Amino acid sequence: MKKSLIALAVLAASGAAMAQSSVTLFGIVDATYAYGSGSVANRSQLTNSGLASSRLGFRGVEDLGGGMSASFHLEAAVNNDDGTGGSTITNNQAATSSGGGLVFNRRSTVSLIGGFGEVRLGRDLTSQFLNLSNFDPFGTNGVGTTQTLNSSIGGPVRVRASNSIGYFLPGKLGGFYGQAQYYMGENLSNVANKKDGNGMGLRVGYANGPIDAALALSETKYLTGNIKAMNFGGAYDLGVAKLMAHYNQDKISNGAKGTGYLLGATVPMGAGLIRAAYSTYKIDNVTGNDPRSTKLALGYVHNLSKRTALYATYARVSNKGGATQALNGASTAANNSSNGYDFGVRHSF
Amino acid sequence: MKKSLIALAVLAASGAAMAQSSVTLFGIVDATYAYGSGSVANRSQLTNSGLASSRLGFRGVEDLGGGMSASFHLEAAVNNDDGTGGSTITNNQAATSSGGGLVFNRRSTVSLIGGFGEVRLGRDLTSQFLNLSNFDPFGTNGVGTTQTLNSSIGGPVRVRASNSIGYFLPGKLGGFYGQAQYYMGENLSNVANKKDGNGMGLRVGYANGPIDAALALSETKYLTGNIKAMNFGGAYDLGVAKLMAHYNQDKISNGAKGTGYLLGATVPMGAGLIRAAYSTYKIDNVTGNDPRSTKLALGYVHNLSKRTALYATYARVSNKGGATQALNGASTAANNSSNGYDFGVRHSF
Amino acid sequence: MKKSLIALAVLAASGAAMAQSSVTLFGIVDATYAYGSGSVANRSQLTNSGLASSRLGFRGVEDLGGGMSASFHLEAAVNNDDGTGGSTITNNQAATSSGGGLVFNRRSTVSLIGGFGEVRLGRDLTSQFLNLSNFDPFGTNGVGTTQTLNSSIGGPVRVRASNSIGYFLPGKLGGFYGQAQYYMGENLSNVANKKDGNGMGLRVGYANGPIDAALALSETKYLTGNIKAMNFGGAYDLGVAKLMAHYNQDKISNGAKGTGYLLGATVPMGAGLIRAAYSTYKIDNVTGNDPRSTKLALGYVHNLSKRTALYATYARVSNKGGATQALNGASTAANNSSNGYDFGVRHSF
Repeated sequence: MKKSLIALAVLAASGAAMAQSSVTLFGIVDATYAYGSGSVANRSQLTNSGLASSRLGFRGVEDLGGGMSASFHLEAAVNNDDGTGGSTITNNQAATSSGGGLVFNRRSTVSLIGGFGEVRLGRDLTSQFLNLSNFDPFGTNGVGTTQTLNSSIGGPVRVRASNSIGYFLPGKLGGFYGQAQYYMGENLSNVANKKDGNGMGLRVGYANGPIDAALALSETKYLTGNIKAMNFGGAYDLGVAKLMAHYNQDKISNGAKGTGYLLGATVPMGAGLIRAAYSTYKIDNVTGNDPRSTKLALGYVHNLSKRTALYATYARVSNKGGATQALNGASTAANNSSNGYDFGVRHSF
Repeated sequence: MKKSLIALAVLAASGAAMAQSSVTLFGIVDATYAYGSGSVANRSQLTNSGLASSRLGFRGVEDLGGGMSASFHLEAAVNNDDGTGGSTITNNQAATSSGGGLVFNRRSTVSLIGGFGEVRLGRDLTSQFLNLSNFDPFGTNGVGTTQTLNSSIGGPVRVRASNSIGYFLPGKLGGFYGQAQYYMGENLSNVANKKDGNGMGLRVGYANGPIDAALALSETKYLTGNIKAMNFGGAYDLGVAKLMAHYNQDKISNGAKGTGYLLGATVPMGAGLIRAAYSTYKIDNVTGNDPRSTKLALGYVHNLSKRTALYATYARVSNKGGATQALNGASTAANNSSNGYDFGVRHSF
Repeated sequence: MKKSLIALAVLAASGAAMAQSSVTLFGIVDATYAYGSGSVANRSQLTNSGLASSRLGFRGVEDLGGGMSASFHLEAAVNNDDGTGGSTITNNQAATSSGGGLVFNRRSTVSLIGGFGEVRLGRDLTSQFLNLSNFDPFGTNGVGTTQTLNSSIGGPVRVRASNSIGYFLPGKLGGFYGQAQYYMGENLSNVANKKDGNGMGLRVGYANGPIDAALALSETKYLTGNIKAMNFGGAYDLGVAKLMAHYNQDKISNGAKGTGYLLGATVPMGAGLIRAAYSTYKIDNVTGNDPRSTKLALGYVHNLSKRTALYATYARVSNKGGATQALNGASTAANNSSNGYDFGVRHSF
């Protein structure tokens, strides 16, 4: 639908000279019946984003001529079970929008794009997140989300950063891709934690035919301990199945270290897709317990069209070393397991 | 306007095969000068939604083929006097978004529609609200809003519910229509009030030619007392006038009972519409006073076009048994009356 | 882009008879690297709106026939560095939306327009703000913003007012233009500060060929002291440069008086624009110090297209009489100066 709106606008606007210019309204509404059980308490919900993150966005591209273009991207989370928006961390520390109103927390950027690549400014996904999501059969959505993210000690910027300056390599480099990112905590210079929330990330990868693999590194400053993340992952498409794996390490200086990995696959079945993953994450604390949580997840997606799908996912997380990870809002005691499942419908526009 | 945008998109998109697919931006901006007087204090405001609730929304339908379609609907209240959004109750209990930001509190749903009817998931109007609104000449907007809603003890879900699973009968059943709804409070299972905010509603009706009538029942669980609502209403279009009436009862188990009714009419006058209603609601408390409030409302709507109208409404509410209902933000002492009027303009897009 | 969308919609909708009707999605995403230094602390930020206020809006016009039209305008601030929205003062006093969600704080109005002019209802810019912004080379955006606004004691309505009823003269009056505005604090009538936030403004001007000049007056009631604003300003376009100046006075009854002025110019340079301004504002307090802050600002805008521009601005503010004005989030001690600069990209859609 949106493609047609773009095409129309362009044709009428100014013909071939502006052929890449567009403004697009887009979104996903994904509703999920989610059940979670644990040794302490269970929970039943009509929630959202079991297959893909519900969102509403506005984006556009302007052809500047000479191979250059400018673009913007404003994308808000939508909790379509109750109508609220998401929340955003404005300073990569603790300042969180909390009112429940719509915020462009998923992405709010403006870019200049040319032969040199892309410079992107604003709030965006961090380099250190992408391997966890791109190489997770469940795409870090719903009850099947990789435990390397759910247990992560990667701090406020483990998924997104505000106040970021990003650079992306241009698209055509024989399969190689890469990005670098610097983000700011924006503190006054006369405070002890003046560097809190400042950080940088780097990601390089190679995608060609059936293979896609990437490595990411990041470091974010906090007075309580800088956080370094390192992860790599890849996918190999065999046709009958697509195999995925990633490894992730988060290290707080003078503090805990979290290490985990995922092994998974997706298997196309006509209009459907089977998804399965094993993921585990262990936190090595300086003292005391070393909690480990391990998840097994199995799911099926049935596409009614390109835009609309039904899905079901089952997952079980087991805990050791004092871990209390629970699924779908349940509560479980230390070293007990938790089960959860999702049933839902995802509709894109 | 929006219809043309849809039409365009469809034509360009994929021709006849996708003819029912669309994405639509829609809304209402309704500005109201509202005055209210009471025995304690008066109030003068430039407020909103005197004729119709101000809103901004996005909705779409995708034809899935085989008589099936998928749709979404995201609709936010807009307080256009000051720019804020509305608020939403996220758990059908007390968790209310309060920041003033835009939330899709009016409706945020995704649906699958077919010969079987419609399954709708998310936040939506409750079954128990519709008779109050559909059979009120003032449509529960502005100073004329039926007292069966304004005094209602129907609790957090008397208008809308979050986390709901709704089912609607298909359109063509010889005039019969109906819906059932289940909604969840989403509490942990190990708390005393674990069922708080869980509920269900049912509504059945018949609309054919000049007649429209419906009955609704609902029950919502709360540890402090389950709330049962029962109401029925109807409209009969005589041509020269449309008569409307409804009866509403809200009962808190082991607690208060509220009972009320409305009698009203709308009379078309060329490009205009006269609106009048008498409504009353009495709360039978277990002990103490039994407050009753009774409203007389009279209004006129002048349509400048299908999309734009001017309107004026006058109302007077009288109180007995300790009731203190006041209009348009005024304040009135127990058993005193309150007057109010609205002047405004409603513009739809 | 938006113009083409409008054109399309109109053509398909109903031909010539509806030729003025439209609904438009519009916005600006402006990202700024901003640095500020002061004697106490410096700050480095990736922020927004260095050249133009970032925003997302929806507006439309409906032709009602007979020279009449209706229109709406909903416009929200967008902090595109972190995804949050802006905030709005709902009662022209202290009630501020604070959740960070998107609010239509920049403008949320509905209008009726005809030969008589325009009646506009809702939240809008105040009459007393426009001379400061229209006759500032920096348009009250970014580090160069006129000190007559940054130091202003004009209170909650110095830029915008909620709950306003505005009237604008029709466009064709031989160059004369004008507007009057009344806004309400909406307090109950039995409180001591019942008039707080009530106010009115008036602005008259003349624009013809190279000249544009206007005068504005306003008064807003507060129990703590009514605030009167008076300002006038003008611009003269010499072709090689556009000269701008304004004078502004804010007076709190029985309290402080603020007085300031700006002298500035813009100089077009091919696809670029040089901007420069000197602005100063002094607060005469009843007792104690009389703080004065004076700013020198110099900037350059380079237009990559009509919609996209790069810009850089440098400014220095000096303080006397105890003033502590600092730039770009820095902090400076009394009577010390502060420096700041902006680098950024503005993209409109």
